[in-house]
Amino acid sequence: MNFPGFAQLLTDAQVQRVHEASLEILQEVGLEVQNAKARALFKQHGCGVVDDSRRVTIPPRVIEQLLKSVPPRFTFHARNPEFDRTIPDESPLVMTASSAPNIIDPVTKEQRPANSEDLARVARLIDQLPGIDLFSVPVLAADAPAGQYSLTRFYTAMKYCRKPIRGSGDPGGDSESILQLAYAIAGSEAAYKAHPFITHHHCPIIAPLKLDENSTEMMIFYTEQGLPNHPTIVPNAGLTSPMTLAGTLAQGNAEFLACAALMQMVRPGTPTIYSTLSTVADMRSGAYASGGIECGMLNMAHAQMARFYCVPCSGYVGLTNSKVVDAQAGYEKAMSCMGGLLAGMHVLQFAGLIEALLTFDFGMAVVDNEISLMLKRVARGMEFSEANLALAEIKAVGPSGMFVDTELTLERMKTTAFLPDIADRESRENWSKRGGMETADKALLKARKILESDCPSLFSPEVETRIRQRFQGMVAGEFKLSENWKAGGATPTNNAVQSAILKNHEGVAA
Amino acid sequence: MNFPGFAQLLTDAQVQRVHEASLEILQEVGLEVQNAKARALFKQHGCGVVDDSRRVTIPPRVIEQLLKSVPPRFTFHARNPEFDRTIPDESPLVMTASSAPNIIDPVTKEQRPANSEDLARVARLIDQLPGIDLFSVPVLAADAPAGQYSLTRFYTAMKYCRKPIRGSGDPGGDSESILQLAYAIAGSEAAYKAHPFITHHHCPIIAPLKLDENSTEMMIFYTEQGLPNHPTIVPNAGLTSPMTLAGTLAQGNAEFLACAALMQMVRPGTPTIYSTLSTVADMRSGAYASGGIECGMLNMAHAQMARFYCVPCSGYVGLTNSKVVDAQAGYEKAMSCMGGLLAGMHVLQFAGLIEALLTFDFGMAVVDNEISLMLKRVARGMEFSEANLALAEIKAVGPSGMFVDTELTLERMKTTAFLPDIADRESRENWSKRGGMETADKALLKARKILESDCPSLFSPEVETRIRQRFQGMVAGEFKLSENWKAGGATPTNNAVQSAILKNHEGVAA
Repeated sequence: MNFPGFAQLLTDAQVQRVHEASLEILQEVGLEVQNAKARALFKQHGCGVVDDSRRVTIPPRVIEQLLKSVPPRFTFHARNPEFDRTIPDESPLVMTASSAPNIIDPVTKEQRPANSEDLARVARLIDQLPGIDLFSVPVLAADAPAGQYSLTRFYTAMKYCRKPIRGSGDPGGDSESILQLAYAIAGSEAAYKAHPFITHHHCPIIAPLKLDENSTEMMIFYTEQGLPNHPTIVPNAGLTSPMTLAGTLAQGNAEFLACAALMQMVRPGTPTIYSTLSTVADMRSGAYASGGIECGMLNMAHAQMARFYCVPCSGYVGLTNSKVVDAQAGYEKAMSCMGGLLAGMHVLQFAGLIEALLTFDFGMAVVDNEISLMLKRVARGMEFSEANLALAEIKAVGPSGMFVDTELTLERMKTTAFLPDIADRESRENWSKRGGMETADKALLKARKILESDCPSLFSPEVETRIRQRFQGMVAGEFKLSENWKAGGATPTNNAVQSAILKNHEGVAA
Repeated sequence: MNFPGFAQLLTDAQVQRVHEASLEILQEVGLEVQNAKARALFKQHGCGVVDDSRRVTIPPRVIEQLLKSVPPRFTFHARNPEFDRTIPDESPLVMTASSAPNIIDPVTKEQRPANSEDLARVARLIDQLPGIDLFSVPVLAADAPAGQYSLTRFYTAMKYCRKPIRGSGDPGGDSESILQLAYAIAGSEAAYKAHPFITHHHCPIIAPLKLDENSTEMMIFYTEQGLPNHPTIVPNAGLTSPMTLAGTLAQGNAEFLACAALMQMVRPGTPTIYSTLSTVADMRSGAYASGGIECGMLNMAHAQMARFYCVPCSGYVGLTNSKVVDAQAGYEKAMSCMGGLLAGMHVLQFAGLIEALLTFDFGMAVVDNEISLMLKRVARGMEFSEANLALAEIKAVGPSGMFVDTELTLERMKTTAFLPDIADRESRENWSKRGGMETADKALLKARKILESDCPSLFSPEVETRIRQRFQGMVAGEFKLSENWKAGGATPTNNAVQSAILKNHEGVAA
């Protein structure tokens, strides 16, 4: 990122005060720690532990000491190192948001539970969208066999997407089998651990201030193994944190510090991410308002805290409560992720999801890819240089002149501005002639075009065999364009819509 | 605005360098000045003037001297001082964008030329939307009698909107009759000049570096009269300025400095605004890409220059190239205006317009009102205080507790978060039951609800009589809900759509 100054919602003194307030919370209130291993670790490191109540209090010096060993960088590995991404060096990165139970069927436009076939298409789409850097497995798979809930998702995701994969294990314990899958793909445990291409993710804190049993177990497990993993902190003001931004920030920051400290207790020097999804509840209905602008603001403030700690940061920012790819989805996502970007967030997690993280939409992913490319254009900044000040050219062209065919124009006409694919800049007349498509339809059409191309499995026959030998009953997880989509829709209405869209596309392509 | 730090795209040294580059442009290239009065003023103030070529060159010391008398504040007056707004004190302010020739008919959804009846409805709508502070007359009036093109717009706008009015005179010269209208409304010239409730606006610079005849004449005229007015600078990279952000910034900044200097030559101490609409052309088609993210970035950089000069700033930021109120309209508008806000722009001009400033849409104005209220929530900032850190409450609630009925929650549940009216946060099930309305339809419905209420003229019978005596043939300009809209639409299709919407509304209202 090339910003001489970040947007700041806190003064330096306020950042310091939030830090102190968080230390006070951890010392005086502490955490309820359900996981016994975690309690033992806290005890070993000089924290107050009352086993009966499971209450752990953490002295400020313990936090401050452990923070020193958190590295300032975090790498998301991919199988092919060409797709590796490191923050903050390569920020901003855009990630898909996770883990929605549902998908909008691209043909019927109806919501339904997502399955492994959907996920194969999602994985292929994300593989092909250049603005999306990281693939947090965005949907569940309703057809996963018992005992393979998480395994099905990792298998299908890695079969079709080359980008770094992030995902959660199934609470209750398939962390070991996810590793077996990874070893089967890499060829061996050693090969995998030399370049671990899964980033494990969990929400071990149940706000306020409780460390749970299973996600905490996974955090400890992957950290012990030396494998990349990080928590996300999710206070919700008015329900699980105070109904103020400052109070929610202080509590959320305390929760992050506790997790970061625990990871350092397990294995000093373990990289982590200050990752957040802090929200304010809509108290009219109790709705989860992750599309609210306050979610953007809280993420911006967390980014400032992360900078104070020199820890890479990430957040679910750019979410929407909309049920469709409409103006609301556009403005809720765009306002918050632009805020996050300008506040210096390193990873923005939003691509593909609508309905407050409940549903994946193919068209939304395509729109989010375009939003991401706009964010990356902003991050390139002004490209300030003497050459770009163009004084010689301004002098040569003079008053009333034209810059349409100057050297600089010919050289930079494809690069100075981001040239959008989805945003329509035609005249109304031309736009109408081509069918007058709204963004949602245009984006869905682009998704379909991408998914119509051939898409071989990324797994060699040997890898596929190893996986199927190891995991009986694994889903097929084969990529194919759905029959409905291929046929142009299941109902007359959809047939009409589809043929109109396809007709439009000829015009656009022409 | 309560931001401890603005987003900056330029370092301090780069700001200084842009300033120097602009001075160099004005000194070495200068301007082509078509207006003879302006040329005379430049000459009187020590500028080089070659009357044959109309070329004026401005020495740096002239600019630097004149900049000293530009006031750091600008007030937009309204008839009722309660609606006056001053920048930077009351920033961020949101303004409607101007001056579209077309409107989307709210019933047929077709684009057509706007007329004075449309403008009466637009004026009433903007009057009623709390997020929109300033009313730049957003549409033309195709039914204006000859010689009353601008007059018709000012008359109709002020008849139904109490907010500060901004608008342009008709190039060619009705500046005097606009003042006569203002005097008739205020009661006398003296009464008007004591509280001048029109802010005059012009684009005197034809980029690159040409001061035109008529708009420059108006700028001089209103400045001589001591009346509030300001220019907007509109370079378009690749066509009328260099194809780089830095070069376009330097040229646009030079163009602003020339206008600001000229205004100070006319009347030292005249307030003005550093107002911009800098864009980058889409060279694939030559399209005017005011929805492009680069327009947002250039406005952000201009805001930094304005801060360097201690001049209030404003910009057309938050525009879209979309033809409809869809996701594109949402994300293009939201990204740029969030950028502008976080960069410290005092006025954001975007409300109501789509299609790169060509068309007004009632639903878009309602959506933009909501975007504005979100921006204003961001501008309130973190509301950081010891009370809001809520340490006592966090301690009292403790791990695993709930904040749903704490004192702070009950006190702040309506104020911490902006509670949206358009953004839908229902479950998909409830949303579907209520008709599954997309944002565009929901917003249009809200516009209709607002326009169904009684709306008397803001002019007393005496004022109305004075105006009609002075201006023969003035349009009626009466507010009424259009017959089509009242009837629920002109075609069966629209009837069906409208009754579905109204049916939905019952659900929403219930």
